[in-house]
Amino acid sequence: MRETSLEQLNSATRAEFVAALADIFEHSPWVPEAAAAERPFATLAQLYEHLKAALLRAGEDRQLAVVTAHPDLAGKAARAGTLTPQSTAEQASAGLDQLSEPEYAAFHRCNEAYKARFGFPFIICVRRHTKDSILQALERRTKSDAATERAAALTEILRIVALRLDQRVRAPDRLAVHGRLSTHVLDNLSGRPGEGIALELFELSRAGERRLIARAVTNDDGRTDAPLIAGRPIPTGVYELRFAIGDFYARTKEALADPPFLDVVPIRFSVAEPEGHYHVPLLCTPWSYTTYRGS
Amino acid sequence: MRETSLEQLNSATRAEFVAALADIFEHSPWVPEAAAAERPFATLAQLYEHLKAALLRAGEDRQLAVVTAHPDLAGKAARAGTLTPQSTAEQASAGLDQLSEPEYAAFHRCNEAYKARFGFPFIICVRRHTKDSILQALERRTKSDAATERAAALTEILRIVALRLDQRVRAPDRLAVHGRLSTHVLDNLSGRPGEGIALELFELSRAGERRLIARAVTNDDGRTDAPLIAGRPIPTGVYELRFAIGDFYARTKEALADPPFLDVVPIRFSVAEPEGHYHVPLLCTPWSYTTYRGS
Amino acid sequence: MRETSLEQLNSATRAEFVAALADIFEHSPWVPEAAAAERPFATLAQLYEHLKAALLRAGEDRQLAVVTAHPDLAGKAARAGTLTPQSTAEQASAGLDQLSEPEYAAFHRCNEAYKARFGFPFIICVRRHTKDSILQALERRTKSDAATERAAALTEILRIVALRLDQRVRAPDRLAVHGRLSTHVLDNLSGRPGEGIALELFELSRAGERRLIARAVTNDDGRTDAPLIAGRPIPTGVYELRFAIGDFYARTKEALADPPFLDVVPIRFSVAEPEGHYHVPLLCTPWSYTTYRGS
Amino acid sequence: MRETSLEQLNSATRAEFVAALADIFEHSPWVPEAAAAERPFATLAQLYEHLKAALLRAGEDRQLAVVTAHPDLAGKAARAGTLTPQSTAEQASAGLDQLSEPEYAAFHRCNEAYKARFGFPFIICVRRHTKDSILQALERRTKSDAATERAAALTEILRIVALRLDQRVRAPDRLAVHGRLSTHVLDNLSGRPGEGIALELFELSRAGERRLIARAVTNDDGRTDAPLIAGRPIPTGVYELRFAIGDFYARTKEALADPPFLDVVPIRFSVAEPEGHYHVPLLCTPWSYTTYRGS
Repeated sequence: MRETSLEQLNSATRAEFVAALADIFEHSPWVPEAAAAERPFATLAQLYEHLKAALLRAGEDRQLAVVTAHPDLAGKAARAGTLTPQSTAEQASAGLDQLSEPEYAAFHRCNEAYKARFGFPFIICVRRHTKDSILQALERRTKSDAATERAAALTEILRIVALRLDQRVRAPDRLAVHGRLSTHVLDNLSGRPGEGIALELFELSRAGERRLIARAVTNDDGRTDAPLIAGRPIPTGVYELRFAIGDFYARTKEALADPPFLDVVPIRFSVAEPEGHYHVPLLCTPWSYTTYRGS
Repeated sequence: MRETSLEQLNSATRAEFVAALADIFEHSPWVPEAAAAERPFATLAQLYEHLKAALLRAGEDRQLAVVTAHPDLAGKAARAGTLTPQSTAEQASAGLDQLSEPEYAAFHRCNEAYKARFGFPFIICVRRHTKDSILQALERRTKSDAATERAAALTEILRIVALRLDQRVRAPDRLAVHGRLSTHVLDNLSGRPGEGIALELFELSRAGERRLIARAVTNDDGRTDAPLIAGRPIPTGVYELRFAIGDFYARTKEALADPPFLDVVPIRFSVAEPEGHYHVPLLCTPWSYTTYRGS
Repeated sequence: MRETSLEQLNSATRAEFVAALADIFEHSPWVPEAAAAERPFATLAQLYEHLKAALLRAGEDRQLAVVTAHPDLAGKAARAGTLTPQSTAEQASAGLDQLSEPEYAAFHRCNEAYKARFGFPFIICVRRHTKDSILQALERRTKSDAATERAAALTEILRIVALRLDQRVRAPDRLAVHGRLSTHVLDNLSGRPGEGIALELFELSRAGERRLIARAVTNDDGRTDAPLIAGRPIPTGVYELRFAIGDFYARTKEALADPPFLDVVPIRFSVAEPEGHYHVPLLCTPWSYTTYRGS
Repeated sequence: MRETSLEQLNSATRAEFVAALADIFEHSPWVPEAAAAERPFATLAQLYEHLKAALLRAGEDRQLAVVTAHPDLAGKAARAGTLTPQSTAEQASAGLDQLSEPEYAAFHRCNEAYKARFGFPFIICVRRHTKDSILQALERRTKSDAATERAAALTEILRIVALRLDQRVRAPDRLAVHGRLSTHVLDNLSGRPGEGIALELFELSRAGERRLIARAVTNDDGRTDAPLIAGRPIPTGVYELRFAIGDFYARTKEALADPPFLDVVPIRFSVAEPEGHYHVPLLCTPWSYTTYRGS
C-alpha cells in the first residue's frame, strides 16, 4: 500500500529522492532536497529527523514560504478542487469538505481574521482534529502573538509531514503518530468476558450531530477483533460508545425487568491526546456498570 | 390543594358524597353510590377498597358500561376538547395532546383495530406511561384475547381511580401510587459528596426525541434537594440523566486533560415499575465512574 | 441514663452545680465553680463554652495544675486502681487496662520520656483513639516543643471534658463529639439491597491483633438496623469489615463456582476523624465488588 | 530443564522409551510399554492421549493395580522418606510434608476410613490442591460409592500423569495443565496504570494460617513483570492479594487523610479451576476501589 520504501529512497538518485518526497512539505521540494545528502537513513525516524532539521535550519523567510504555501482550511481552493491530493484527503478526514453554508462562512471569517492578524494562513494538522476542535483552535490561536503562531505553524507542519511520511514510506519502524482506541466488556454476572455485544462508536459535535465511526461486536474475549481506531491519530473531540447490553442479557439470562433497567449504555468521553492509547472498558451487570480510562 | 377530605366525605350526605366522587369512575357515579353506605372509612385505602369492591361485584354488563364510557386515547374527543377535565389532564401528562400527524394517525389506526377486535376502547392508566409505552402496550394488547382484555381494562380503570382519589382527597394515609426517582453523586477523588454538580433528566423516545423532565444542582450531600420525580408514578419508559462532572472538576481541581476525558456523563436507564423507587447514583473521578440501581 | 439534666444544673445552688460537675475537669472543681455564675445555659453547648472559657482565661499556672492533675496513661495509678472512675473507664475503652508486659513497658518508657522533656504528663482524649494511635501520638508529640504541647494538652483536656459532659447531662442538644460508622450492601445481580448478609467489624492493631467490635446482619434495605458505631467517637485506627457474601449468594443463586470466587469480602480502612461519618458500602456480585467512602 | 524431548522419545528404542517414562504412572511401566508401538507422536498431547488410552483399555484389574500402587497422602511412606521422587515433590507442593501432628492424625484417620470403605488408597492430583482442599475432597469422596471412586481415581491419575509428562518432555506443544493468576492496578485518580505498587499474594488456610506465595511491585503498565502464578496449576483454595496503595498515594499525592482511608487493600478470592486464568485487577483511588474477575 505504501508507495515507496526506505531502501528505495536510500538507493535512489538525488532527483528521484526529491521527486518521491516532493509533496511531503506542501509545495516545498527544497526541504527533501536539503536532506538528500544525509542518506542513507537507517530508520524512518531518522529520515523524519533530517527533514525536520532541514526545515528548522533554513532561515525564517524560507520557513514562512512553506507556511504560506498551505491552503486555507475549508477555503476557496478546497471548494474549487485545486488542493494537492494530500490536502484534499486530509481536509476530508475531518469532514471539512462537507460543511454547511453557515459552517463554511464561520471558517471563512475565522481564516480571514487569522490571516489579517498574522499575514499567513492558519495551519493545523487536520488528521489530529475534528471540525469542532479545529474551529476552537482557530479561535484560540487568533488571539495569540506572532512569534507563538510562527512556532505553532512549524509544529503543525512537522506533524503533517510525519503523518504523510508514515503513510508514504515502507520502513522497519513507524513514526509515533498513531493513537489507539479500544474497549473490553466484562460481564460481572458470570465473571466472564461479555461476548457478542454489539457496540457503536460515534463522534459527537457541539452542534449535536453524531457521526458513526465504527461498529463492532465483542468476541469471546469481550474485545473487538480490531481496535476501534488504530494506525492513525484519534481526532481531538468528543466520542460516544454505545453498548447494547440489554440484548446481551436478554439472550443469556431469563428474568429481566421489562423494559430492562439498562439497555443501550452510552459512554461519552473526550480525546485530548491524538497519539494516546484510550482503552475504555465496560464492567457490567443488568443493574450496574463501571467504566474508566484503562491501559 | 386537594378539594375534599376523608372526614368531609364521611360526614356528607349520600348525595354530597356521590357528587364529590361522581367523576372518579369515568361517567359512572353509580360506583361511589354503591359504596356510600359503607361509610365511615378510616383511611383512604379503605375508601378505595370499597369502590373497587363495588365495581367488581357489579355484573359484567355494568363493568363493560364503565369501560365503554372511556374516550379513545389521543382520539377525536381529545382533539375536539370534549373530554372530562381528568381525562384531558391525564392524556396531556404523556404528551398525547401534542402528537404529530403521523403519531395521531398511528394511534387512530391502533385504537380502531383494538375496538374492532374487542368491542370496547383501549384503556390504560396514562399517568403510568410514556407515549412510547402506551403505543407498545396497545399493539401488544390488541393481540390478546377478550377475557384477558376485559380484566386488563378493569385493572387499568382501578389504577386510574386510585390516582384520581389520591389527588382529590385529603386523608391521613396516601395510596401506593407514587414512584420516586432520586440520584446522588459521590466524588471518589475527595471521598466526599459531589456538590454543585448540574444535572438534567430527559425522557427519551424511540423516535429519538428528548424531553427535559427535571434540572437540578446537587447540594452539599451530593443529592438534589427534592427527588427528581416523586408524588406521582414514574412513567414506564427510557430516561437519561446527564451529570456535568467536567465543570465540577474544572472548579475543584487544577490539572485536567483538555478537553477533559469525562465532561457530561449520560446515564440511560428504563423504568419498568412506575410505583418503584429508582435510585440512580454516580460514583466518579475525572477518569472513571460507576452507576447502579441503588436503594 | 444520664445522671443530671441541664435544667437541674441551671436551677441548682452554686454548691450543687459545682458538685455535679466536680470531676468533669480531672481533680479541678474550680473550673465549673468559675462558670457557675454564668447560668442559666440554654444549651449544653453553651455550658461547654463557658467551662472552656473559664479554663482558657485562667492563668498558665492554674492551667498547668489541671494538666498535671491527670494520671499517666497505662501508668502505675491505673495498675494500682487509684484512677478516677472516668479515667478508669476511658483507659479501658482503648484496652489500656489489658496491655501485655512489653506494651506496658513501652508506654511506661514513652510516658517517662514525655514527662522528662515537658514536666507534665502526656494527655490525650483516649476515647478518640486506639492503643496504636495513642502510642504513635505519644512518640510524635514527645518530639514537639513545650508551647505546642501545652496547647495540645489543653485541647485534649477540652475534648475529654466535652465527652464527659455529653455523657453526664441530659439536654435538648448534644455536643459534636460523636462519629458514625455505617454500611450498606447492594446486590448488583438483582438490583436490590443485599438482605441477610452477615458482617463483622474488627479493629486491627499493628501487632496483627484483631478485636471484634460489632457483628450484624443486613436488613431488607441492605443496612444494619443500627449503625456499627454511633453515639461516641470512632477511635482513630485501622478497621476491617468482613461481609459473608458467599453465603448470601449460595442462598439466592444456584450455580456458583465451588468454592465461590468471593466468599468473605474484607474491606480494610482507617479512621482519621473520630467525629466523622464513615459510610463504607459494598456493591457486589459473585464476581466483583466496589467499595468507597460514601456519605 | 526438561530431561528428554519428544523427538528423543520417538527415535529411542522401545526399552529406552519405557525407561524414560517408567515412573510417569506410579510404579507402572507397563502403561508406557503398551503405548510404545504407537510412536512416533507428533505432539505431547498425542503421547498423552495414547498413554491414557492404554490405561483405559486395560482391564479393571490392571487399572486397580495402578491405583493401589499409589502411596497414602501424608502417610507413613512420606514420613519414612520412601516415596518416589515425583510423589515426594508433589506432596511437598501442598505442604503435606510439613503437617502438624493433629493435621497428620486427621489425614491418617481419613485415609484409613477411605481405604476401609473402598479397598484402595485415596488418590488426588496434589499439585492442583491446597492442604485444605485435599482434606475436604477426602472427606467428601469417602461418602461416595465404589464405582464413582474408581473413576475418580483414574481421572486423578491421568491429571498426575499429564503434569508429570508436561514437566518431563520438551515438545512443540504443552498440555493444558497450567493456570495463570495475574493482576493489574489502575489509578483512577490519574487515569493511568498504578506504577510501583507493592503487592503480596498469600494462600489462606481454614485454620487461619497465611502462606506467602508471591511478592511483586507493579511496573509502568500497572502489571507485574511476570504473572503471580503461571506454568503450573493454581491450587484450589483461598487467596489474598494485598496492595499497598497507601504508600503509592503518599508518594504521588500530597494531601491524604492521616492515617489514609485506604492503606493496604486486601482482596480475598478462591480458585476453583486450577487450569483457569484468574485476572484480579484493582481500580482504585485514595477513597474507593473496585475489583472483579477479569480476563
